[in-house]
Amino acid sequence: MRFRFRPVDSSFYDLFSEAAAHLVVGAQLLSEMLADGAPRADIAQRMREAEHAADETTHSIIRRVNSTFVTPFDREDIYSLASALDDVMDMMDEAVDMILLYEVTWLPSETTEQVEVLQRCAELTAAAMPKLESMGALDEYWIEINRLENTGDKSYRRILANLFSGDHKALEVMKLKDIVESLEGAIDAFEKVANIVEQIAVKES
Amino acid sequence: MRFRFRPVDSSFYDLFSEAAAHLVVGAQLLSEMLADGAPRADIAQRMREAEHAADETTHSIIRRVNSTFVTPFDREDIYSLASALDDVMDMMDEAVDMILLYEVTWLPSETTEQVEVLQRCAELTAAAMPKLESMGALDEYWIEINRLENTGDKSYRRILANLFSGDHKALEVMKLKDIVESLEGAIDAFEKVANIVEQIAVKES
Amino acid sequence: MRFRFRPVDSSFYDLFSEAAAHLVVGAQLLSEMLADGAPRADIAQRMREAEHAADETTHSIIRRVNSTFVTPFDREDIYSLASALDDVMDMMDEAVDMILLYEVTWLPSETTEQVEVLQRCAELTAAAMPKLESMGALDEYWIEINRLENTGDKSYRRILANLFSGDHKALEVMKLKDIVESLEGAIDAFEKVANIVEQIAVKES
Repeated sequence: MRFRFRPVDSSFYDLFSEAAAHLVVGAQLLSEMLADGAPRADIAQRMREAEHAADETTHSIIRRVNSTFVTPFDREDIYSLASALDDVMDMMDEAVDMILLYEVTWLPSETTEQVEVLQRCAELTAAAMPKLESMGALDEYWIEINRLENTGDKSYRRILANLFSGDHKALEVMKLKDIVESLEGAIDAFEKVANIVEQIAVKES
Repeated sequence: MRFRFRPVDSSFYDLFSEAAAHLVVGAQLLSEMLADGAPRADIAQRMREAEHAADETTHSIIRRVNSTFVTPFDREDIYSLASALDDVMDMMDEAVDMILLYEVTWLPSETTEQVEVLQRCAELTAAAMPKLESMGALDEYWIEINRLENTGDKSYRRILANLFSGDHKALEVMKLKDIVESLEGAIDAFEKVANIVEQIAVKES
Repeated sequence: MRFRFRPVDSSFYDLFSEAAAHLVVGAQLLSEMLADGAPRADIAQRMREAEHAADETTHSIIRRVNSTFVTPFDREDIYSLASALDDVMDMMDEAVDMILLYEVTWLPSETTEQVEVLQRCAELTAAAMPKLESMGALDEYWIEINRLENTGDKSYRRILANLFSGDHKALEVMKLKDIVESLEGAIDAFEKVANIVEQIAVKES
């Protein structure tokens, strides 16, 4: 007879990968939303479904944390990472919702850059999640997300300066500012995910 | 002779209940503030007093954390929960202050819904605090707060879309948006409290 | 022969002091930015350099956390404190950038008060960092930062009420509000630093 150690539950990594996969879908829908003549109500509906699917994944992670004896890293960190991934989805959903509700007919061209940054962040995050298992090669992920967030920040401030140039009516500026801010908020939320991954790696190292 | 174990200090639960009780008062004052012909300066003064009383409770919790050897759950979590409860009060106080300072003569009817959500959140939080002791039956509290926050979110975006409809002057829209955002911020702050309670329960389970 | 204990690496305190010293520089540059006829592009350039220097210090702290076996306090707390100090710099850099980009020709006189609060917060934070080693006399620092943040909060709301008085055009109000909000955000970020220091002291006590 020999001791049987209970193995660490590897499916947490699968669930985090699933959560990040929802973000790839969300960023894609956001990109479709910006296209000329896009079926906005339809895209917003698909976004809502993606957001619900992301919620399901988040709850699966929480339930598993509650029912699993040995977790691959600290329970609180699993919880924080799951929440942070969920926050990104909420921000992207908010942006899509605002574009629909505010009935804007024009968006600054730089919003396309913001959404490209979001798509790149989603892909990097999806690629990073499986690496949590070995904690390997995550440095490049953080550095790149932080670089992207900096780029996003600069273009965000430039958009605002342009909006305030006097070419737009105040109410229109307020709507556009809200949308641009929610895109910037989604980029920041991706950075927060990267920061949590960094903290987990620091702890586990 | 037998060992005497030092009992866990149960009064932390009383202090958290006290903190949540201040939030019930704050939400009530916010509701009074919205009534037609409300004595705004007077209500804002009572809000200030409630906010100071809440500060006192927060400091009592911190002092007790510092002077108590055995705490019912992690010191950092006690600290986080106390701060999060305090943040709700600050947000509600901000909303009341803005309604007074901005001298608004009209508020969107949906702000009443937002304040009803806040009152419900305050009651649920007050009812949840004593349950921290047994960590029992807290699931319903989180789920309901999260549901309320989602409802609040939807009505918040609808209010904004209405404000931007063109029926209001830009400066008026900015004022109303600030107030509606601070109400939304208070609802979010209640959700943050619920998330911390969830994290504590996850840890202790 | 005797055991050689690896000493706790004291240079973490030096690095935190270095981080806080960058904030003193940043607050000073912000103050110069408000002066009549200030060479704004030049000051913004120096702010960018200060911000990069602050980034370097943050990375040095993270690298040292990763390569040091014994840290003076929890790795996560070192990480949180470094991030929070970095956030203050980002907020001050944002304020300077906005003043330049928005090409504002007038700022409410109370912004001077906000910047004075920021300079005072920076000095207090710089004075507090070396005290992390002994965890001594930090109470006064927290209390004073919290008091300053409360003052900042009140003057922030008063500025907004004045901006909304009807004397300014809506677009101008939006620009000024953004700047005033980023200053308020920097003050809040100093309070977050103080809260993290308080949490560390609570944990270590």
